[in-house]
Amino acid sequence: MIKVAVWGAGMMGQGLLGYILDRTDKIELVGVIDRHPEKHGRTVGEVLGRECDIPVTADIDAVLSKKPDVVCILTASNLREISDQVEPAVRAGANVICIAETLSYPWASDSEWATKFDALAKEFGVSILGTGINPGFVLDALPIALTSVCLRVDRIEASRVNDLSPFGPTVMESQGVGTTVEQFEAGVADGSIVGHIGFHESIGLIASAMGWDIDEIKETRAPIVTSVPRETPCVKVGCRHVAWGYSKGELKIELIHPQQIRPEAEGQDTGDFIKIFGDPNISMSNQPEIPGGKGTYASVGNYIPLIGDAKPGIVTVVDMPLPRYWA
Amino acid sequence: MIKVAVWGAGMMGQGLLGYILDRTDKIELVGVIDRHPEKHGRTVGEVLGRECDIPVTADIDAVLSKKPDVVCILTASNLREISDQVEPAVRAGANVICIAETLSYPWASDSEWATKFDALAKEFGVSILGTGINPGFVLDALPIALTSVCLRVDRIEASRVNDLSPFGPTVMESQGVGTTVEQFEAGVADGSIVGHIGFHESIGLIASAMGWDIDEIKETRAPIVTSVPRETPCVKVGCRHVAWGYSKGELKIELIHPQQIRPEAEGQDTGDFIKIFGDPNISMSNQPEIPGGKGTYASVGNYIPLIGDAKPGIVTVVDMPLPRYWA
Repeated sequence: MIKVAVWGAGMMGQGLLGYILDRTDKIELVGVIDRHPEKHGRTVGEVLGRECDIPVTADIDAVLSKKPDVVCILTASNLREISDQVEPAVRAGANVICIAETLSYPWASDSEWATKFDALAKEFGVSILGTGINPGFVLDALPIALTSVCLRVDRIEASRVNDLSPFGPTVMESQGVGTTVEQFEAGVADGSIVGHIGFHESIGLIASAMGWDIDEIKETRAPIVTSVPRETPCVKVGCRHVAWGYSKGELKIELIHPQQIRPEAEGQDTGDFIKIFGDPNISMSNQPEIPGGKGTYASVGNYIPLIGDAKPGIVTVVDMPLPRYWA
Repeated sequence: MIKVAVWGAGMMGQGLLGYILDRTDKIELVGVIDRHPEKHGRTVGEVLGRECDIPVTADIDAVLSKKPDVVCILTASNLREISDQVEPAVRAGANVICIAETLSYPWASDSEWATKFDALAKEFGVSILGTGINPGFVLDALPIALTSVCLRVDRIEASRVNDLSPFGPTVMESQGVGTTVEQFEAGVADGSIVGHIGFHESIGLIASAMGWDIDEIKETRAPIVTSVPRETPCVKVGCRHVAWGYSKGELKIELIHPQQIRPEAEGQDTGDFIKIFGDPNISMSNQPEIPGGKGTYASVGNYIPLIGDAKPGIVTVVDMPLPRYWA
């Protein structure tokens, strides 16, 4: 039995809790932490509509005193937001698996943070892993694995075309769904429209695996303007976010992630598309795209049995064994 | 620098030698062994038409006395055929990476052999890995990696449709290219037409990763009869080899590998196709297929920097880190 605590009982945390309750023969759920008072006092069973009398609590110490082997953190995107969650988990001797996009390759956004937490994890003999559908799989681990049958890799291009329709207002706002072009441009300028979080991390993961020295990253965030009504008569419906990684002026990595609602309304198929340019070329497509939510918490769950053998410190999906479903 | 010896200077061995000569800053080629007298006395440079004065030799002891870190074996398909190559390499303290299809999961064809060599490798503190395009990647490692973003996996179906045209007479004969239906059936019966070697190994790899207890494997080898002239007016042009793995009567794994010449002549696209049935479903295609020869020796080369950190004993691609191109 692996003792697991879950930090964050929002949509992603609830998905992981469902995964965990499907594996009560392998996982002992020792506690669930959430900072939102409206969730406190309810049991996991009440939240999920399943059998489980573990309460959702704000009492971090009580949960960590149960000595979880792994703490899964599903709360926020940025390193500074998760510091107060990762640190006590590590100090309690737990391995950490976390969906913060920036943790998939923390050197990309904050190398000082990465150095500090790498040292902390080594001090306590535990591992910290960031994963999810993207970053963590579609635009990094999967293209990296495909290069393993190549003699030469010149350049990697990967694109994920998804439908945001299932997501809630926070995601819609962060992608600028429903804004005019002018509102979109203003949102990008003031940081309220962020597009995808994770391009710098995916580029870092690919570059580290390929041994490429990426010295320049360019990005664009462009409004996707619909020509047909999609859901509402909004002027625009999403953010086409593209990033390019260069080495000495040469394009090595191109990542494309248009996030929008109902792309099929304009004949745009959703999917995950990877092109390896080299010897041989590889052109992979997966249609429709792997669902982002399920893929993210499934990835977290499926790394639970693998992280116990990882080397101490911050590890990435490139350092980990071949990922696989945990039956 | 990693010291590498190559055992086998046929088509696959020559491909790997080219890979190695592209990486003289990382790999020191310490010797090349081949049992064919016509190759002896020639240098690798003469064989490849490149610069390299390492001779091709039958002198195993001379090569192994140079203490290679890794011996790459590219000679034969079956475990009993490679015993006399793997054993001295292991006793010389070298890790082994080998393209013998049966070595990718040796428990499938000869668990006694696997037990013996696993113990031998542990005794000498080295690792033995079998890899290649298939088994080793397309029909096992790649579908396994795709399951890592699944909450539930009920069944895996994978198909590799390739064109044998680049291959020589040995492969053509083993697939029954150019035979009549009667000759084909006789060839399957007497073992001269084998179809694909590796289905049992791919099923073993998938089942071990998924935690499935496969208790029955069925196979069929059917002639592919052409309706249009393909290259020659042969009655048939290949072998459609299918394998099914069951657990308690339930189909869990279906692997399909029709090997033929010029499939495009009948409108059959080549490619690698993977379907994961579960939650979510995944449907991946890669077209055209990853070339078998290049993919095989690239896979061997790309595991060279990873095998030094593997645990001693027989290891599989499921035990290894996420595979990736070695720049």
